Amino acid sequence: MDAPQTVPRLPIALTMGDAAGIGPELAILAWRDRKLHGLLPFAIYADLDLMRSVAASLGSDLPIVDVSEVGECAGVFDRALPVVSVALNQPARAGEPTPANGAATILSIKRAVADVAAKRASAVVTNPIAKAVLYQSGFAHPGHTEYLGELAKEFWPTDTAQPVMMLCSSQLRVVPVTIHVPLKDVPALLTTAKIVETARVVALALRRDFGIASPRLAITGLNPHAGEDGTIGTEDRDVIGPAVGALRRDGLDVTGPQAADTLFHAAARQRYDAAIAMYHDQALIPIKTLAFDEGVNVTLGLPFVRTSPDHGTAFGIAGKGIASAASLIAALKLAADMSARRFRAATA
Amino acid sequence: MDAPQTVPRLPIALTMGDAAGIGPELAILAWRDRKLHGLLPFAIYADLDLMRSVAASLGSDLPIVDVSEVGECAGVFDRALPVVSVALNQPARAGEPTPANGAATILSIKRAVADVAAKRASAVVTNPIAKAVLYQSGFAHPGHTEYLGELAKEFWPTDTAQPVMMLCSSQLRVVPVTIHVPLKDVPALLTTAKIVETARVVALALRRDFGIASPRLAITGLNPHAGEDGTIGTEDRDVIGPAVGALRRDGLDVTGPQAADTLFHAAARQRYDAAIAMYHDQALIPIKTLAFDEGVNVTLGLPFVRTSPDHGTAFGIAGKGIASAASLIAALKLAADMSARRFRAATA
Repeated sequence: MDAPQTVPRLPIALTMGDAAGIGPELAILAWRDRKLHGLLPFAIYADLDLMRSVAASLGSDLPIVDVSEVGECAGVFDRALPVVSVALNQPARAGEPTPANGAATILSIKRAVADVAAKRASAVVTNPIAKAVLYQSGFAHPGHTEYLGELAKEFWPTDTAQPVMMLCSSQLRVVPVTIHVPLKDVPALLTTAKIVETARVVALALRRDFGIASPRLAITGLNPHAGEDGTIGTEDRDVIGPAVGALRRDGLDVTGPQAADTLFHAAARQRYDAAIAMYHDQALIPIKTLAFDEGVNVTLGLPFVRTSPDHGTAFGIAGKGIASAASLIAALKLAADMSARRFRAATA
Repeated sequence: MDAPQTVPRLPIALTMGDAAGIGPELAILAWRDRKLHGLLPFAIYADLDLMRSVAASLGSDLPIVDVSEVGECAGVFDRALPVVSVALNQPARAGEPTPANGAATILSIKRAVADVAAKRASAVVTNPIAKAVLYQSGFAHPGHTEYLGELAKEFWPTDTAQPVMMLCSSQLRVVPVTIHVPLKDVPALLTTAKIVETARVVALALRRDFGIASPRLAITGLNPHAGEDGTIGTEDRDVIGPAVGALRRDGLDVTGPQAADTLFHAAARQRYDAAIAMYHDQALIPIKTLAFDEGVNVTLGLPFVRTSPDHGTAFGIAGKGIASAASLIAALKLAADMSARRFRAATA
């Protein structure tokens, strides 16, 4: 095993995302502001010509350097954005995604994960992809997170991968138990076991990756006012309540089911380290209302650290130089923090 | 009709709410701070002994005056809190509600509305009630708003009453199309007609009561990302989209269905005057996350102005002198603004 002081200094592997989206320009903007934000070295796994042309469009003083492998990144990062070359099939045009470049988008992710598995990089930060474009290029996974779960199995065959999405900002951490499903399917998809499993992954991650020794979890109800004792829906009492009970019997500090509308104001947020919500909007409305630009998407429950900016490819503004790198910068910083903590915990 | 300068000065009729809840003490706290907040005269329709004992418990300098009718209020308000007497059946104990006092709770509401109908008061502000307690006393309406709808029919028999709940704060106005129903029932309860009717009531009220000549309405989707063109649920496309179309054909400035998670941050809120959400938590999470203490509940679509603090009876803290009157004060101020505007519009 590497010496303690060297491993946390490994660079972060940043993926290209969709080459026609805002990912490439955000990487350059984040590198430009690296000192302002105290960013540790990172390399982007992307097409060299793409990165050169995007950098040129953003300013004359934004050098790009081809590194043959991510380990060279640390020596380069101070003076140029290091690029680990992943070639596109055809030149990318901002805002005009093509399935022809889907394979490069996917290869960028796989190479980044492979470098973390080989201990050449400390964490993976992913730029946004467009699922619909990837499906046309033959991508067989429902989304980013599921693909990363598959890569975890491939590169860490003896570890368990149980990907759980958490959204983090300086004000709130929140985890949806169900995500991109129609609202009408949510009640049937919620089971006591699914809520318990999700909460266990969250509690473990808060300890290991966030340095919270005794994490406090708040679990929302599904219905208005958490069902008011079963008078406005029964899932709170019959499905969520038993999950809270089981988690407490595990010794975890868990409250709920709590009315979701009164759980996210400033005073309420002091009472827990993460909120576990039952569905997409219940989790994402509060965090995006409070911190639209700064949210970070973190995948818990993987054998490696993975974060991502909490926005999409934004094809509509790609190449215009108006996209904000705030979320990517927050994702790079959080990935560095998490991997340093995970490393310290593993070597303690 | 009364002269323009006199009618907006009519006092506000404030109901007792549940006598064992925090309503009576909030009324006294609001009166105490009347000058700080520039409150117009109001009277509470409540039991005299209750108000005297609550006032005594809060401080020695909080006088209560029995006014035989609300019109006397203006001459009294500067030196004492005016009370229009509505006698309880048995003495109230803070935090211990009893069905024996349900009739007085209901009579307080009815007398307040009757005084507005008789043009003795300008608006009704209601303190919180406990539905479960009222049901035990024979109350046959689902809740406050429905009862007010019935009273509207009784006192304004030729007007249409179509009560719609809106929550207001300084940062956001939001209206849920469905309210206290189990989440699993929401998709079936949403119809194009119901969304259109709700939005029309909101648009009319924003013009008449809020002074917004061309109100802009943002309508949320039901599903994550407003369904992503039908790939995550179809109601956005098949039910909500047609409602937006119909409202636009009416000439209204309506956008949607919009992804609910990205609709409530500061920049997004600049783009509409009210958001119309599909269900309880989708509407109440953002407003309570942003302004937990200051939200006001407004009933639109009634022939009279009605506002209410956006919290419950809070039996657990009643009588302890720790409840915040911020929401009641905001409700009193908004009721005064709305009734002045409605009066000016009616006499213009």
